[in-house]
Amino acid sequence: MRPSGRDLSEMRPVSIETDVTKHAEGSCMIRVGDTHVLCTASLEERVPPFMKGTGLGWVTAEYGMLPRSTSSRMRREATAGKQGGRTVEIQRLIGRSLRAGVDRVALGERQITVDCDVIQADGGTRCAAITGGWIALRLAVNKLMKAGDVISDPLVDPVAAVSCGIYAGQPVLDLDYPEDSEAGVDGNFIMTGSKRLIEVQMSAEGSTYSREQMNQLMDLAEKGVTELVAAQKAAVNA
Amino acid sequence: MRPSGRDLSEMRPVSIETDVTKHAEGSCMIRVGDTHVLCTASLEERVPPFMKGTGLGWVTAEYGMLPRSTSSRMRREATAGKQGGRTVEIQRLIGRSLRAGVDRVALGERQITVDCDVIQADGGTRCAAITGGWIALRLAVNKLMKAGDVISDPLVDPVAAVSCGIYAGQPVLDLDYPEDSEAGVDGNFIMTGSKRLIEVQMSAEGSTYSREQMNQLMDLAEKGVTELVAAQKAAVNA
Amino acid sequence: MRPSGRDLSEMRPVSIETDVTKHAEGSCMIRVGDTHVLCTASLEERVPPFMKGTGLGWVTAEYGMLPRSTSSRMRREATAGKQGGRTVEIQRLIGRSLRAGVDRVALGERQITVDCDVIQADGGTRCAAITGGWIALRLAVNKLMKAGDVISDPLVDPVAAVSCGIYAGQPVLDLDYPEDSEAGVDGNFIMTGSKRLIEVQMSAEGSTYSREQMNQLMDLAEKGVTELVAAQKAAVNA
Amino acid sequence: MRPSGRDLSEMRPVSIETDVTKHAEGSCMIRVGDTHVLCTASLEERVPPFMKGTGLGWVTAEYGMLPRSTSSRMRREATAGKQGGRTVEIQRLIGRSLRAGVDRVALGERQITVDCDVIQADGGTRCAAITGGWIALRLAVNKLMKAGDVISDPLVDPVAAVSCGIYAGQPVLDLDYPEDSEAGVDGNFIMTGSKRLIEVQMSAEGSTYSREQMNQLMDLAEKGVTELVAAQKAAVNA
Amino acid sequence: MRPSGRDLSEMRPVSIETDVTKHAEGSCMIRVGDTHVLCTASLEERVPPFMKGTGLGWVTAEYGMLPRSTSSRMRREATAGKQGGRTVEIQRLIGRSLRAGVDRVALGERQITVDCDVIQADGGTRCAAITGGWIALRLAVNKLMKAGDVISDPLVDPVAAVSCGIYAGQPVLDLDYPEDSEAGVDGNFIMTGSKRLIEVQMSAEGSTYSREQMNQLMDLAEKGVTELVAAQKAAVNA
Amino acid sequence: MRPSGRDLSEMRPVSIETDVTKHAEGSCMIRVGDTHVLCTASLEERVPPFMKGTGLGWVTAEYGMLPRSTSSRMRREATAGKQGGRTVEIQRLIGRSLRAGVDRVALGERQITVDCDVIQADGGTRCAAITGGWIALRLAVNKLMKAGDVISDPLVDPVAAVSCGIYAGQPVLDLDYPEDSEAGVDGNFIMTGSKRLIEVQMSAEGSTYSREQMNQLMDLAEKGVTELVAAQKAAVNA
Repeated sequence: MRPSGRDLSEMRPVSIETDVTKHAEGSCMIRVGDTHVLCTASLEERVPPFMKGTGLGWVTAEYGMLPRSTSSRMRREATAGKQGGRTVEIQRLIGRSLRAGVDRVALGERQITVDCDVIQADGGTRCAAITGGWIALRLAVNKLMKAGDVISDPLVDPVAAVSCGIYAGQPVLDLDYPEDSEAGVDGNFIMTGSKRLIEVQMSAEGSTYSREQMNQLMDLAEKGVTELVAAQKAAVNA
Repeated sequence: MRPSGRDLSEMRPVSIETDVTKHAEGSCMIRVGDTHVLCTASLEERVPPFMKGTGLGWVTAEYGMLPRSTSSRMRREATAGKQGGRTVEIQRLIGRSLRAGVDRVALGERQITVDCDVIQADGGTRCAAITGGWIALRLAVNKLMKAGDVISDPLVDPVAAVSCGIYAGQPVLDLDYPEDSEAGVDGNFIMTGSKRLIEVQMSAEGSTYSREQMNQLMDLAEKGVTELVAAQKAAVNA
Repeated sequence: MRPSGRDLSEMRPVSIETDVTKHAEGSCMIRVGDTHVLCTASLEERVPPFMKGTGLGWVTAEYGMLPRSTSSRMRREATAGKQGGRTVEIQRLIGRSLRAGVDRVALGERQITVDCDVIQADGGTRCAAITGGWIALRLAVNKLMKAGDVISDPLVDPVAAVSCGIYAGQPVLDLDYPEDSEAGVDGNFIMTGSKRLIEVQMSAEGSTYSREQMNQLMDLAEKGVTELVAAQKAAVNA
Repeated sequence: MRPSGRDLSEMRPVSIETDVTKHAEGSCMIRVGDTHVLCTASLEERVPPFMKGTGLGWVTAEYGMLPRSTSSRMRREATAGKQGGRTVEIQRLIGRSLRAGVDRVALGERQITVDCDVIQADGGTRCAAITGGWIALRLAVNKLMKAGDVISDPLVDPVAAVSCGIYAGQPVLDLDYPEDSEAGVDGNFIMTGSKRLIEVQMSAEGSTYSREQMNQLMDLAEKGVTELVAAQKAAVNA
Repeated sequence: MRPSGRDLSEMRPVSIETDVTKHAEGSCMIRVGDTHVLCTASLEERVPPFMKGTGLGWVTAEYGMLPRSTSSRMRREATAGKQGGRTVEIQRLIGRSLRAGVDRVALGERQITVDCDVIQADGGTRCAAITGGWIALRLAVNKLMKAGDVISDPLVDPVAAVSCGIYAGQPVLDLDYPEDSEAGVDGNFIMTGSKRLIEVQMSAEGSTYSREQMNQLMDLAEKGVTELVAAQKAAVNA
Repeated sequence: MRPSGRDLSEMRPVSIETDVTKHAEGSCMIRVGDTHVLCTASLEERVPPFMKGTGLGWVTAEYGMLPRSTSSRMRREATAGKQGGRTVEIQRLIGRSLRAGVDRVALGERQITVDCDVIQADGGTRCAAITGGWIALRLAVNKLMKAGDVISDPLVDPVAAVSCGIYAGQPVLDLDYPEDSEAGVDGNFIMTGSKRLIEVQMSAEGSTYSREQMNQLMDLAEKGVTELVAAQKAAVNA
């Protein structure tokens, strides 16, 4: 029934390649099916002005798409002169999600910026960005800990994200682009490794859904996150 | 326990004053406690270019805050040269939510723009904007129907929104600003009059929540929306 | 002869409602006929950089129109990415006019920003903004004096403004929108309570006027300001 | 008493050099004392969209200052990313003033853009721009008439402008920069050759003025415009 | 003598991986040492307005750097709100260089946009972008020819680019970042496969050079381009 | 053969008028045929932040064109909201070129900004800007030396620039606009008075050139610069 032939509760293949760029403190290329996102974590020994002297760390994120990551070429946001509404909304979500898994006291007064740049898009880029962004963050924090700059681990539980939706009347896990563009209901579920919820966003566009359907999607999302966290652990320990 | 002395499941007083400006096709001032939002619906007999010739209508929304709607003066976005990320995110949400309750075939090829301008803010402005925005939309559509330009009612079910969150460890309904700024978990629930879900957004900032807590907030939200829809009906029929 | 049936030297009804928003140090809603402007005064204990250490205070103003304050919806300036030329010109005029009535030594090194937001427009918004803006300023200064932060009153004389023009060949007082859009000559007159002049702007668009006509408009303006200052005094003392 | 040693009613020396650039349809360099403005008129056989098919012509203006036209270098507006409020206000004034002297039916459906670029500034740049801008416009219209594209002269009466103000308590004609920066009251007077008024703008900054003083400045302005119009005629006929 | 231990006339290792993204009509990842640039060619069946109806094709380029492609994180240009001067200069150079190798009549009235996004930077990014950009262009044109949309090959000769400079007093080929940041003279040489020159840019910053030195760098550049063109041919034929 | 009737190696007449504006520390109007550029040098006793405390001086440049400097009116960059790519590229070139002739230690920790504004354009504006910009710089530095603020002359050798190109198959010196718009190859050559090279830029647009042709253009350029430097010396010593 799904265009890709996947089962309703089957994720696309996930691969995570770490340390893909020599400059960033942490980096990975995450591939969820044909969605490929390059995630880097950049460490700075300073925090935003409003946080100075608090002793707390900060994690923020930025998101971008290469012009030809999509099926037809998109205008470069630097040319357009500003980030579009969708970009801003996504990068706020990534930042908020990653911060939810960070002990900011343990991190200490420093900032880590996670950049998520979509190299190739086929649906679910924000979820791949969060899942891969956490890897980049984990690797950068590992360096801080190895150097003795951070003593107690500020990342106690992994953070991963998956999308689910109602496609052709059925709840499905991990929407790809052909599904995403048809689905009447579409949700993003961000959780920790222990299935604590960080953010749930379920939107209908020109449609509505019942509380029961919401629960079905939640069940699928838990399954997906379990698999993603396993992939994260394997990548970090590799 | 709540700063306002309200019960955990008690909403702030809601008032809706209709037809508050002489130019707009539909308008209201909605007051949810000390949060006051002016909502206007503007009708245009044209749709965005990508929709021309489809026979479908369009509903879109814009959101703004007056500089001194807040406790300290905010910089005017027109001066800053762009709408901030939060503004863009909110107005996308309002538009999406209102559209979910619109039969775009019945509306016909015309556009209604709902402007939601916050006159005074005390938490929950986006929910008040959606609830009041629907009133403005309803009144504008009424005019279209009265004039015979629209035959079948495109608004079959009201749309309303309420926020809930976990404040001081307890699930509470309709967060005001002092609660909102302290709450670790904060959700916006947009539903129809028949309790169908349109959008659920539950975020934790620097925290997480369980699925059980999510369900408690959902229960509160259903109670709140029931009350808001009653207020909408009273206002429209007044 | 006038579309509204008013006499040539008759103003529209004026009402001023004070303390309309809980956050601002001073505020009012001024209504001049169908022109409604919300004015707030925001106090900050800092001045612009070029004024630091001078001991002098500063008063500045910003002006905006809600998108549907007008008969057809205007584009939001925050969306357009900048304030239009008309907006900038008007807010510079408001600031200059209010400052002319301020003893900046007595005010002391602090800044008051007066925001004038047009809720509904029917001609003469800039004049209503100045007249109402002075009320907001007066109320904010009253708070400073009550608190003992300012000893000698920096507002010695009220500031009010009215428009006059040549409509259908006749000099008329207080142009409303239908008159304003037809008038060949259109002036704004800003004066103090004792009829000292602060600013006179008389423009012809595609037309010219004689010095005698200019004097006739000045006479009308003096009459209008007398009435506005009476309304200001009543509002402040209420 | 004046820093320059001029009499109270004495203008600075005025010179107008025509046809200073080979590309523009009309051009001049106007020098009013040390204020030098290059004015060009550019003809386009099209009008703004809202004017198409009306048969009416349009005259518009733009104003700029070279970065080192002033005593200390100003930031280039193209670098700042926008025209400042003062620039926008001035160019609206120039356009409005020149249009007041144009018979738009006689001009026919075409647009003339008058660019006024300040090469060297010493007070009164907007007045010099209007006076010189009219020359550039006159020369461009002459070409249209010579070519038979325009039959009836659309410029029936010259347009000129001068500033007056109250300096050291005295009404003075044609303020230069040292006077302008000290004057408490400062006005711009735009008139036709037959002394019909087009625009009067008299502002006080941190001060006020009486109606009698206003009349004194008007008298001075009439004297100044008489001299400027004589210089315009001499330049055009040279 | 060189930080990398390379000979004066030794290039860094070059690798070119083709068809790296599924959406673009042509694509490659080019690696010149630690400089990695992703190049995509996007085909559109339309040309810029000023070229419509001429029958000529158009090739244009855009350039960007990922925020953490560099040793310390750069601000994202989309956030800054515009492309910096360096970016604009580079993308104009890339477009001009590629067009010099295109028979625009043979290409026919269509546009190819070449995007060059720097994934990792270590000097010479603009040269790598041109060399890799030509590969992407070649692959896209191959598709057009295979589909019979283009009959005669519009790319008659490859285009490649290399930098040379004077480092520590010696002429060296293919500057890496440590050399580039120290070199007093730095040139970019763009040539065809048959060593015809397309563009030569040799700049000194705070220094000068002789015509003899210029000739030495030209000799080195010819050597480098020979090697790059061989790599291009191998990649395209692979 | 050349549209102007000049010999292949003949420059247009060059005139340099110095001290043309009273505010700038150094200024000139340079005319190369019908290309007229106003150059001013502005001295500031501060350097950019990244240079503070280094003891080194800085020279930077900005470039602009008046809207009607060209044959059809160009849009003002301040209105467009940004400097175009061509402008940015040119002003970077001017700054780099002038700095190459400056002993930044001798200049001391101060900044000189050279503004080059094109009053009338007929090809070769960037070269005229560099040649004239050096005059403005020279005059400003003379003031510094006369005042004893700078002891050792930081300008040891003049800097001048000329364009050459291949027009109708022939190498020609100093392209004017009709030649420039037709030439397949076009180069800018910036040199010192002793013929040391500062920058060479030779571009082909839709064409290529041989190394021999490059040498021919270099020979012409040396001839042109010799003449320009003679004109510079005459102007400075006048």
